[in-house]
Amino acid sequence: MSSSRGPLLAGITSPEDVRRLSSAQTVRLSQEIRDFLVDSVSRTGGHLGPNLGVVEMTVAMHRVFRSPTDTFVFDTGHQSYVHKLLTGRQDFSELRSKDGLSGYPSRAESAHDVVENSHASTALSWADGIAKANVVRGLTDRHVVAVIGDGALTGGMAWEALNNIAESQDRRLVVVVNDNGRSYSPTIGGLAHHLDTLRVTQGYEAFLGWGKRALTRGGAPGRFAYDWLHGLKKGLKDVVAPQGMFEDLGMKYIGPVDGHDVEAMERALRAARAFGEPVIVHAITEKGRGYSPAEQDVADRFHAVGKIHPETGLPVAPSRFGWTSVFADEIVEIGRDRKDVVAITAAMLHPVGLAPFAQEFPDRTFDVGIAEQHAATSAAGMAFAGLHPVVAVYATFLNRAFDQVLLDVALHRAGVTFVLDRAGVTGSDGASHNGMWDMAMLRIVPGLRLAAPRDEKTLRTALREAVDVDDAPTVVRYPKGAIPAPIEAVDTIDGVDVLARHTGDPDAPRVLVVGVGSMVPVALDAASSLALHGVAATVVAPTWVLPVPPAVVKLVPEHDVVVTVEDGLVDGGVGAAIAQRSAEAGAGSRFVHAGIGHEFLDTAERSEILDAQRMTAGDVVRDVLGALGRA
Amino acid sequence: MSSSRGPLLAGITSPEDVRRLSSAQTVRLSQEIRDFLVDSVSRTGGHLGPNLGVVEMTVAMHRVFRSPTDTFVFDTGHQSYVHKLLTGRQDFSELRSKDGLSGYPSRAESAHDVVENSHASTALSWADGIAKANVVRGLTDRHVVAVIGDGALTGGMAWEALNNIAESQDRRLVVVVNDNGRSYSPTIGGLAHHLDTLRVTQGYEAFLGWGKRALTRGGAPGRFAYDWLHGLKKGLKDVVAPQGMFEDLGMKYIGPVDGHDVEAMERALRAARAFGEPVIVHAITEKGRGYSPAEQDVADRFHAVGKIHPETGLPVAPSRFGWTSVFADEIVEIGRDRKDVVAITAAMLHPVGLAPFAQEFPDRTFDVGIAEQHAATSAAGMAFAGLHPVVAVYATFLNRAFDQVLLDVALHRAGVTFVLDRAGVTGSDGASHNGMWDMAMLRIVPGLRLAAPRDEKTLRTALREAVDVDDAPTVVRYPKGAIPAPIEAVDTIDGVDVLARHTGDPDAPRVLVVGVGSMVPVALDAASSLALHGVAATVVAPTWVLPVPPAVVKLVPEHDVVVTVEDGLVDGGVGAAIAQRSAEAGAGSRFVHAGIGHEFLDTAERSEILDAQRMTAGDVVRDVLGALGRA
Repeated sequence: MSSSRGPLLAGITSPEDVRRLSSAQTVRLSQEIRDFLVDSVSRTGGHLGPNLGVVEMTVAMHRVFRSPTDTFVFDTGHQSYVHKLLTGRQDFSELRSKDGLSGYPSRAESAHDVVENSHASTALSWADGIAKANVVRGLTDRHVVAVIGDGALTGGMAWEALNNIAESQDRRLVVVVNDNGRSYSPTIGGLAHHLDTLRVTQGYEAFLGWGKRALTRGGAPGRFAYDWLHGLKKGLKDVVAPQGMFEDLGMKYIGPVDGHDVEAMERALRAARAFGEPVIVHAITEKGRGYSPAEQDVADRFHAVGKIHPETGLPVAPSRFGWTSVFADEIVEIGRDRKDVVAITAAMLHPVGLAPFAQEFPDRTFDVGIAEQHAATSAAGMAFAGLHPVVAVYATFLNRAFDQVLLDVALHRAGVTFVLDRAGVTGSDGASHNGMWDMAMLRIVPGLRLAAPRDEKTLRTALREAVDVDDAPTVVRYPKGAIPAPIEAVDTIDGVDVLARHTGDPDAPRVLVVGVGSMVPVALDAASSLALHGVAATVVAPTWVLPVPPAVVKLVPEHDVVVTVEDGLVDGGVGAAIAQRSAEAGAGSRFVHAGIGHEFLDTAERSEILDAQRMTAGDVVRDVLGALGRA
Repeated sequence: MSSSRGPLLAGITSPEDVRRLSSAQTVRLSQEIRDFLVDSVSRTGGHLGPNLGVVEMTVAMHRVFRSPTDTFVFDTGHQSYVHKLLTGRQDFSELRSKDGLSGYPSRAESAHDVVENSHASTALSWADGIAKANVVRGLTDRHVVAVIGDGALTGGMAWEALNNIAESQDRRLVVVVNDNGRSYSPTIGGLAHHLDTLRVTQGYEAFLGWGKRALTRGGAPGRFAYDWLHGLKKGLKDVVAPQGMFEDLGMKYIGPVDGHDVEAMERALRAARAFGEPVIVHAITEKGRGYSPAEQDVADRFHAVGKIHPETGLPVAPSRFGWTSVFADEIVEIGRDRKDVVAITAAMLHPVGLAPFAQEFPDRTFDVGIAEQHAATSAAGMAFAGLHPVVAVYATFLNRAFDQVLLDVALHRAGVTFVLDRAGVTGSDGASHNGMWDMAMLRIVPGLRLAAPRDEKTLRTALREAVDVDDAPTVVRYPKGAIPAPIEAVDTIDGVDVLARHTGDPDAPRVLVVGVGSMVPVALDAASSLALHGVAATVVAPTWVLPVPPAVVKLVPEHDVVVTVEDGLVDGGVGAAIAQRSAEAGAGSRFVHAGIGHEFLDTAERSEILDAQRMTAGDVVRDVLGALGRA
């Protein structure tokens, strides 16, 4: 069931149609887009706030530039819904589903889409590369437009790119800074202060008018009034001698521009286009603009929404917060017991569950911006200086800090705990958000210990054990979604929990099922089915899976087949590690590894992906029976 | 044999001794240190230029601050020789040898050393973490001093850290920017231009005097005269209204200061210390100061020297450039044939062998600064826009770009070639410079193909094949050092080279030896020895080792033991990949994996490390005989 579209929006089949509209029509089109998004995204789930913030900006971009000859790059991609609507993709009914539109740009969907990676801060590097290539190939009439948020500018990649872009005088590159003044969380750091200052400098006159409108608008104008007055105070000397960081670096700067004024945005972009050199256009926007629950939500719960009620903005299904909420609770308990435990987040205070900790221990909570590298290395510094930092991030984002985990944390034997939320298959968040790389990647790191708890109790215990390690990095990983009911052990062998023992006939084939974290229920189901097939199946679930527990290796030779079930890569993952350690120990056995294959995952529901990756209990049973010669 | 030390230097046993000197004595001490370094480092090899640049700065730091209560963090660590001399470590005779002083800070050596990781741009994150911890613990009298080069400031981590440092008003943190105006290569980018400008702004009067001295000094003052005049021109309006990027971010700025004037450095550091908030001290230095071959070498061959003649500065042993020089030659040939091939370096144009390419194709060569993330992602952008980029880096530095290789290059099926120099054990460059992580890390990346050539011919062929792949990342990796004589194949099986076939008795045990890249000579030696033990050993050497060539898997079941020999991690490496693929194919065999263990490597000669890691031909023979039950 598709959401209803206004008449102007319904008439847009390509960017050319956008360019044909009158100025007045672009204002109406923007309102139609906003209405459509609120209605549609609240049904399907998705990123509502970020897209409401870029409606007019995106309309203006498509009027001034000619995609796909000119290239549009959206940082993190979750702000590309408007772009989709203007480039022939208006059926949002299956957004983020297997057969529907992707929640991010997708090259398979459209020639207007370029970057599918939705990790932050990449857009400027993509744009710089494309612009350099255009120069080398003599395609000097092509422009590249990158849209990046103020939050993403705190990421190191963005700085590396700015430094490169600024040196150029021949690249036709426009950087649109989408400054909503808070990004994921209330933005902190030197850059944020500078952006505040810029707001009242170069475009001072223009800003005055805009600021007045913002202040006199109905509703709660608190943030704007504050920012404006604050900025005015800070910026006084800059008003006299306008100057800014971007110009210091050598880049032309246009702004600030009211990002919700289509005409103003068009003027700024046309000026930037005419310039012929890299230019920054500083647009001031409001995340969630036009949707009052999102506008007023300081905790930014509307950054990405599950399915929500379109009027109240209340979530329809809150259960996905299961694992995160247990972490949120336990880390506060730990904080009360241990004064040396501090928490670090990379601009994700609420999503990773650190808000309660921050509330109780504000002086021991550090939001470093979208800066995973700094999170890891500053944590190593804190550990050196006598603290035990807990760095909580989505699993996929730890990729950004591999070198720092390896050479700053592990090499220095720093007691730092990494808590990885959304580990394993997440599904509908898109290919780059699956937290599937962590175990294979972290296995490389000498000294690192990794826990994959299976339920609330093991999660709480693993966290306690992790912060007790003071001479090595520890990792606790768990998936997105609801936490399962308690899964009790029936026995323990050298610290490894035994969850089930199906004894068969004396001559029944013996199978060891090793369940890792969130896949323990699958392991248990598979073992029950195998028992019905006359197999003597034992299920073990080591919470600490890396390095491989010796007790598991010891059990291997007692079994005809060993099957490992993990929510991570088969190649080089935990199962492979167990097999390698067993082979070294001369503990030969036939191994079956259930897990994620050597490929990127298309967007789909988690269950669909587990099915496609042959990670269900049925798949495990079939593979084990095959290995036993009973297929 | 220790180098001779001047009388003042010989009397320094700890920083307290430095603090007791008169001002005039610090000048003499600096000269003694400079003489000692030139004499000593030219004998042992090591980083000469960077240390000659920080002599006075380091002396001043130890007079103003009290290490180790105050914490000194040196970015990349190769500029810590002077610090070592002032903290009780003056025997440089075995510098960078197994039993001598490390070439980098080492916690095992001294309580004055903190950060052992010598990857660039980490210092500010370490310092921010330590300073935050000091605040949390109430140790508000402790200062943290980080020394970072202008080149390292181009790295994204440094930006992430600056953004965090700038927001603080309670951390006692001093950032000394060691600005030698060229860093590794002539520094490029917006930041470099801004630093140029700063030179003539805030400390304008002080700079005038210093500039005059620099201009009138004997020798070739060209660079300084140019910088000064250039900066003056650019900076005119800033002279009127002094303002800078660092202050824009909210950080206090002191500078520019003549980094070779101990008194001026002391004054600046005392002012910074008194401030009680984060402060940047901008010191202008000359790399190689006082050693004329290093001062005049624009190609920066003296950044790190092998053993060189102390007077002429000519290298004693040039052979280590073997692999690099073949790459340097072949990439130029490829550039002539393929107009779409461009080259990217992360501030290492000369060390990675891209200088000849840059000379012939300046418009197709991009030095992005110390910015591996940007190198990888901008390469993905270039590939999207029709080019084939070749990113040449030291193997260990690709760790920095794991996420970008995975999600920008591989996910987008971008045809980008990564050339990894100094892959495998490098030895004397310190733990963090061993290029030992690449194969296990890159194995995770879907679609990626990796070649490990064994000699000049296979290197040239692999490069050609790599740039022909336009829908996936390709990697060519080779070690530091001399390239071996040609190693010809005696046969080829489905594209995999067979190098030797030792046929034994009909009932001789059959062993397959898989040699990877630089370890092929070891594989061949081991096979010859095994033949003498009556083993029928076959040696294969697939150049493209990832993904695992099916031909190798097919050979596995025909052999009693398969031994893999690689200059990389045993855990999750190429050998493990072959074993995993073979197990999946039901091709059971006993595997022996020779390679690097799950640990960080202490500084030692490469040969010593190979010995300790049991990677010699003798070790391989012993392990194979053991696996055959003949030990």
